[in-house]
Amino acid sequence: MTPPTKFLLDEDAIPTHWVNVLGELPGDPLPPLSPRTGQPAGPDDLTPIFPMGLIAQEVSPEPEIAIPDPVRDAYRLWRPTPLYRARRFEQALDTPARIFYKYEGVSPAGSHKPNTAVAQAYENAQAGIRKLCTETGAGQWGSALAFACTLFGLECEVFMVGSSYDQKPYRRSMMQTWGATVHRSPSERTEAGRSQASHPTGSLGIAISEAVEVAAHDPDCNYALGSVLNHVMLHQTVIGQEALAQLELAEAEPDVLVGCVGGGSNFAGLIFPFLRAGRDVRIVAAEPAACPTLTRGVYGYDYGDTVGMTPLMPMYTLGHDFVPPPVHAGGLRYHGDAPMVCTLVRSGRVEPRAYKQNETFEAAVRFARSEGIIPAPEPAHAIRAVIEEAYAAREAGEERTILFGLCGHGNFDLAAYDAYLAGELQDPEFSEAELEAALAALPEAPAIA
Amino acid sequence: MTPPTKFLLDEDAIPTHWVNVLGELPGDPLPPLSPRTGQPAGPDDLTPIFPMGLIAQEVSPEPEIAIPDPVRDAYRLWRPTPLYRARRFEQALDTPARIFYKYEGVSPAGSHKPNTAVAQAYENAQAGIRKLCTETGAGQWGSALAFACTLFGLECEVFMVGSSYDQKPYRRSMMQTWGATVHRSPSERTEAGRSQASHPTGSLGIAISEAVEVAAHDPDCNYALGSVLNHVMLHQTVIGQEALAQLELAEAEPDVLVGCVGGGSNFAGLIFPFLRAGRDVRIVAAEPAACPTLTRGVYGYDYGDTVGMTPLMPMYTLGHDFVPPPVHAGGLRYHGDAPMVCTLVRSGRVEPRAYKQNETFEAAVRFARSEGIIPAPEPAHAIRAVIEEAYAAREAGEERTILFGLCGHGNFDLAAYDAYLAGELQDPEFSEAELEAALAALPEAPAIA
Repeated sequence: MTPPTKFLLDEDAIPTHWVNVLGELPGDPLPPLSPRTGQPAGPDDLTPIFPMGLIAQEVSPEPEIAIPDPVRDAYRLWRPTPLYRARRFEQALDTPARIFYKYEGVSPAGSHKPNTAVAQAYENAQAGIRKLCTETGAGQWGSALAFACTLFGLECEVFMVGSSYDQKPYRRSMMQTWGATVHRSPSERTEAGRSQASHPTGSLGIAISEAVEVAAHDPDCNYALGSVLNHVMLHQTVIGQEALAQLELAEAEPDVLVGCVGGGSNFAGLIFPFLRAGRDVRIVAAEPAACPTLTRGVYGYDYGDTVGMTPLMPMYTLGHDFVPPPVHAGGLRYHGDAPMVCTLVRSGRVEPRAYKQNETFEAAVRFARSEGIIPAPEPAHAIRAVIEEAYAAREAGEERTILFGLCGHGNFDLAAYDAYLAGELQDPEFSEAELEAALAALPEAPAIA
Repeated sequence: MTPPTKFLLDEDAIPTHWVNVLGELPGDPLPPLSPRTGQPAGPDDLTPIFPMGLIAQEVSPEPEIAIPDPVRDAYRLWRPTPLYRARRFEQALDTPARIFYKYEGVSPAGSHKPNTAVAQAYENAQAGIRKLCTETGAGQWGSALAFACTLFGLECEVFMVGSSYDQKPYRRSMMQTWGATVHRSPSERTEAGRSQASHPTGSLGIAISEAVEVAAHDPDCNYALGSVLNHVMLHQTVIGQEALAQLELAEAEPDVLVGCVGGGSNFAGLIFPFLRAGRDVRIVAAEPAACPTLTRGVYGYDYGDTVGMTPLMPMYTLGHDFVPPPVHAGGLRYHGDAPMVCTLVRSGRVEPRAYKQNETFEAAVRFARSEGIIPAPEPAHAIRAVIEEAYAAREAGEERTILFGLCGHGNFDLAAYDAYLAGELQDPEFSEAELEAALAALPEAPAIA
């Protein structure tokens, strides 16, 4: 009998709770600070743009938080997602390593983002909100939120980072098909956008400023963030919980977990349940060399957006002014990272690695030609790291087990594959002087020991 | 407890055999005719472009044909595919009907086409063939074959219908990512292509001529067809077999089966196992009004391609010269239909219906906004028919059960959704004079009683 290629769970195995590791992270928890007062942020800093249900999740010390039934019902449209054993990829790499991947590309939006989008749309609809406003990089978050809003009867307005808007017109069409309104950011619609007209390629930071501005001025409209915040990490823990159950079916115990990190949510969603379960496993975070937050950033308080409207968060940052060069992994072009993930990097629990664009596409094409699925440019970074781990296992002559998060498909990223296959893909570099300037412009805030 | 949304099967439920209904279709089987002699086609007409393994399947009277292990192993990359209960769509339509759909969009290529692509690549690799050559309309078949060729170590060359090549550049990139070479058809590479330069939008018929010409002149290269032929229908029967098992899990018995028909393979793959099982079910075939083969064509012998290189097949046809206007459902722009499907239409067992482009997109957007998945333009035709059936059930006050084939996602068709949402989508019509001329140019062949 042929051993199985994928490990499936029934709908009743969709997790009933999210896993909250906030209380068990290394070090003392650091509060976000109000951008107005510099003091720990209170409800007043959050209630204009978030519903109380999500604020409660953001600060909750509870180790588990129940998933509301309507959210779990929405999850049924695509969850549980499959766990694959990458047998053909292992063969292609000629490695003794056993490689597994948890595939989130089966969601209607094609990534892990709907895991939190439906949870956020639900809480806002419960709070009587009429519209959600957000930013999107590669378009994966924006399309996830557009999809979630149509399920819960909300309007949706999206500010899409200029470079991605130009490279990925079909992500825009997808959002519109689900009924959303989409603006190219920086836009003329907001003060924040108009102030950033000199950065026409845009950035996640700018687009966040625009969306927050709209939400802050319209009482019927809230803001939704696709990463970084604690409650987003929380919602994504369905990924790792399912993966634990599926690895049990596969009778496998991972030695290494690998994920890509932009804001950190797919990474956190995969690894937090393994931390909760106390698994003795190495953890690798892969990021772009063009936006090397974890490997080149400083650890300190910074704004989540470019203009400085959000609370100050304790994280690795390249400076909220930093505008990364336009790599195709738009979802990884963010100056900061989730505070919860940063804490783990700072303590040494998570090992960060940065990769150049071409080496990630080389990895992605090798993967596509053996496993079939064409990965999004973001998880291509994880695949690059997996190849390194697989070769290391071969050199050590060890049968190591690797699990990585394949957080989305690349159906909307084929222009980038085109460029790679034509030998025309760049490895864009940021200017060291610009990075230095952005780091020098960090806001005044208490130093972190 | 919430009732389930989707019905999954484990990998060991992937069918072990294909279902061959050739011997149980209505009427006497009609042989294909040689284009050279007008007599029943013999092996000489097929061996230059097909391996013996597939020729044997093409003419086999056996009721079941075993699926080779390496093909079943390749199926594990995405099969069994999910069966969904469209609960949110039912609600949106306010219908007492229970609507199920079998979703083939989870394959790496995003459609049902890999079901036959891997079977064909395997048989050719077994026969020592080095390269496969084919045509593609919307790009779904070409990308499926490119994917299959990379799994079995074959080269792949694809002639892509001009209008789709222009509308869907990312389908081309997808094929190239899997290592294939892609030409815009009509191309300069073949005599057939050069002779059709006056039809720059191309057609499936022209692209077939080009691919067959290349295969016929290169002994290391065979041709692969993505639809129409008996062995292609055969390979697709994994769809209906799984659906039968999944409906049993759902404790449902369908009253109506609905599929879209271009060449007929996804339709046949869904319905043949229900015919074999003797189910008392109505069957509806949905096609585009712009290429209304089943509803406006004549039943007779015609070439499968435009130039007249293939055997003559008994089928409904608009004439091999007919060039349908460029609707977005490129996979349905074919002048003929599978002989096995045509037999069922002719006998009255299958009811054909034709739909205009805009009404199919209206249906697809309603579906996307309730179920999430954005359908390809081809199955949008089936969804249009499903809406009619759901309304009919409401008018009759009956809880009818409808199963339809959602044979692919629309991730590469968003330019068409864009046009629809902007109110700019056409309902292109063919010229009646051109249809008349194409029908007058049918080849001389025995009349069919």
